[in-house]
Amino acid sequence: MNAEIISIGNELLIGQVINTNASWIAEQLTKIGFTISHITTVGDNKSDIINVLRQVNIRSGLVLITGGLGPTSDDITKPALCEYFETDLRFDDNVFKYICEFLALRNITVNDLNRKQAEVPTSCKVIYNEIGTAPGIWLLKDTTIFIAMPGVPFEMKQMMEKWILPELQKTFALPVIQQKTLLTHGIAESKLASNLSKWEEALPENIKLAYLPSPGIVRLRLTATNNDKQHTEQLLQLHLNQLHKLVADYFFGYDDDTMEEIVGKLLIKKNRTFSAAESCTGGNVSKMVVSVPGSSEYFKGSIIAYSNKTKIYNLGIDATLIIDYGAVSKPVVEAMAKSCLSIFGTDYTLAVSGIAGPSGGTAEKPVGTVWIALAKKGGVVSELFHFGDNRERNIQKASMAALNMLRKELLNDK
Amino acid sequence: MNAEIISIGNELLIGQVINTNASWIAEQLTKIGFTISHITTVGDNKSDIINVLRQVNIRSGLVLITGGLGPTSDDITKPALCEYFETDLRFDDNVFKYICEFLALRNITVNDLNRKQAEVPTSCKVIYNEIGTAPGIWLLKDTTIFIAMPGVPFEMKQMMEKWILPELQKTFALPVIQQKTLLTHGIAESKLASNLSKWEEALPENIKLAYLPSPGIVRLRLTATNNDKQHTEQLLQLHLNQLHKLVADYFFGYDDDTMEEIVGKLLIKKNRTFSAAESCTGGNVSKMVVSVPGSSEYFKGSIIAYSNKTKIYNLGIDATLIIDYGAVSKPVVEAMAKSCLSIFGTDYTLAVSGIAGPSGGTAEKPVGTVWIALAKKGGVVSELFHFGDNRERNIQKASMAALNMLRKELLNDK
Repeated sequence: MNAEIISIGNELLIGQVINTNASWIAEQLTKIGFTISHITTVGDNKSDIINVLRQVNIRSGLVLITGGLGPTSDDITKPALCEYFETDLRFDDNVFKYICEFLALRNITVNDLNRKQAEVPTSCKVIYNEIGTAPGIWLLKDTTIFIAMPGVPFEMKQMMEKWILPELQKTFALPVIQQKTLLTHGIAESKLASNLSKWEEALPENIKLAYLPSPGIVRLRLTATNNDKQHTEQLLQLHLNQLHKLVADYFFGYDDDTMEEIVGKLLIKKNRTFSAAESCTGGNVSKMVVSVPGSSEYFKGSIIAYSNKTKIYNLGIDATLIIDYGAVSKPVVEAMAKSCLSIFGTDYTLAVSGIAGPSGGTAEKPVGTVWIALAKKGGVVSELFHFGDNRERNIQKASMAALNMLRKELLNDK
Repeated sequence: MNAEIISIGNELLIGQVINTNASWIAEQLTKIGFTISHITTVGDNKSDIINVLRQVNIRSGLVLITGGLGPTSDDITKPALCEYFETDLRFDDNVFKYICEFLALRNITVNDLNRKQAEVPTSCKVIYNEIGTAPGIWLLKDTTIFIAMPGVPFEMKQMMEKWILPELQKTFALPVIQQKTLLTHGIAESKLASNLSKWEEALPENIKLAYLPSPGIVRLRLTATNNDKQHTEQLLQLHLNQLHKLVADYFFGYDDDTMEEIVGKLLIKKNRTFSAAESCTGGNVSKMVVSVPGSSEYFKGSIIAYSNKTKIYNLGIDATLIIDYGAVSKPVVEAMAKSCLSIFGTDYTLAVSGIAGPSGGTAEKPVGTVWIALAKKGGVVSELFHFGDNRERNIQKASMAALNMLRKELLNDK
């Protein structure tokens, strides 16, 4: 079933706000089986809105509209809808009751502008807004459903998730679509694509693979489409198992998992504690670990040793090691990890020392050279990485690689 | 002058990619005096593209198109343009030379698909791509200029900045627009808006104020429009000075400045060094400081003391202070700062201790309670903050507030 999205708002046309609403709606509609043909953005201008409504493709069964439902004179979506649907505004007592209750909870007095928000096109079905004052509007023209929603992202999302998506699934005969995403670390997108190309080419029509890269992670999303739930699930599971085998060396999680959450869960499961000695990542590994609620259960602390002096005096690194091998070296990063392990008395310590850039690189150790060590009571291991020339990405990639070393170790921890 | 933007690509219609290209283009065009009336996204589908081209408003003097210029069969923008402009593709030797040079530098052999990329519509002006293989295409229909660019953001941006924007300014008689943004910290957007409402209402037609909020920062952007450069500059400077006075207590920088860069520049200017003792921010303050290239000049290191034990054993905090006042308290955060100052021997130390949430709050110290201390050789000062209930935002806001304390102190540092 074809669908279109219309976004209304001057702030989108001057580039002040990125249209994340349209992407989110497109993703949700695609997930339940719609095919989006157009996304159109227009300003808060009645004739432009009406013209865009007139241009809706006759094959589209659904048009989702956001924005311009606020109470001020800028907000022109309702008058535009009335003109296009040849209807008037009526005052809706139920909507007004919702608005009064919403404002009363916040100790706000109802004013004339709020009353105006209770006006809806006469021929529409109302979608009540539980977390804002602008109601949603559901209208029908020939066989096309038009739904107008507020542009405030969390109000729109709540309306979509709670009312509109379930209602659309009841209204339209949509194919069953299921998705699952595998998260990989430690392999570039191009390498992954070349490893998987044969398998991908042989995929049946109704299963699709998408690559979603971000620094240090490539997400592999499988989408299965079929006519009933059971067959779609089987189709997805079959190909998921195949894909899992093909990327097993790099796989670390599913869907919305993050590396820091997975590491945190493993630390709790194995009843282990963690600390870090960071140089080039400057606190980013610790910051990632702490971003997980409840991390105080396993994370004890870190030493950010950004200068050689700090490495020597606060981490107790032998100065001759730094003189002989340099701060970015196997002996120094291993000494950092071992020293930090004993300072904090934790089960595991990660240490990171590298050249984030843009300066500090040499022919022998160019920008992007990073040593990472993992210490535990039994000893220490370390690994050399070569990232790129972008400082921010090097910090992110080094942090991810460090946490991944800990993750792998924890999987083998009895 | 009216302009429209057309974005082409299936990845945009399934919500896989957020259309940041369109926002960026809209912002750039607005800055040089265009008024965007429509942004339309369609898929890699010839008849849909042609229909959207046909729907371009006759009042638009400019249509910018991105996407679908790649070498594969999915990329259908060039055939669609040819059909709409009633022209054919011709092989362009210069474009092919560019492509060959580009690939040679990367040790890639030229293939048939690359040859296809050197084909352009016969009647077009070519825009050479210096950092990719797809050329830009400049076409004229009646009085409207159509420009097609690759969808890869950095290729598109380079083409826009280097060739297209300067050329458009020569081609069209555009008003002079100038912008300057003031950065504020420590005041909510709603409070700022209420403080500024009278001043804002009295602004002349040709000067506009926009509020751009993000965690811990509200950006205030002034846009001045006039017919000549000198008057526009005067208009902007006059109102900038007024606005600066009105927000002086919260102002910390201009345009693309960041708090960590400003603090870094001040530390270099005053020849001072810095360290941190972080509890609830878990390394985020250090990570922000280290994100600035060259920060090793002033940043020596930090201790992330996430547990009470770490505060006692590694920062040397008197255990009775924690027992008597709690870890989130004025005495403890001040002791953390003083101890860290002496451990690292720096000129300044920031210490942060708080309850980031979601758990750990009490009636007396709810989630969002954060103590921040700043120590220097002369002594220590501290301040109590109450942020919200979102963990990630509390960490961000506490980090910003801490760096802002240091910034203010550095301004007074002789």
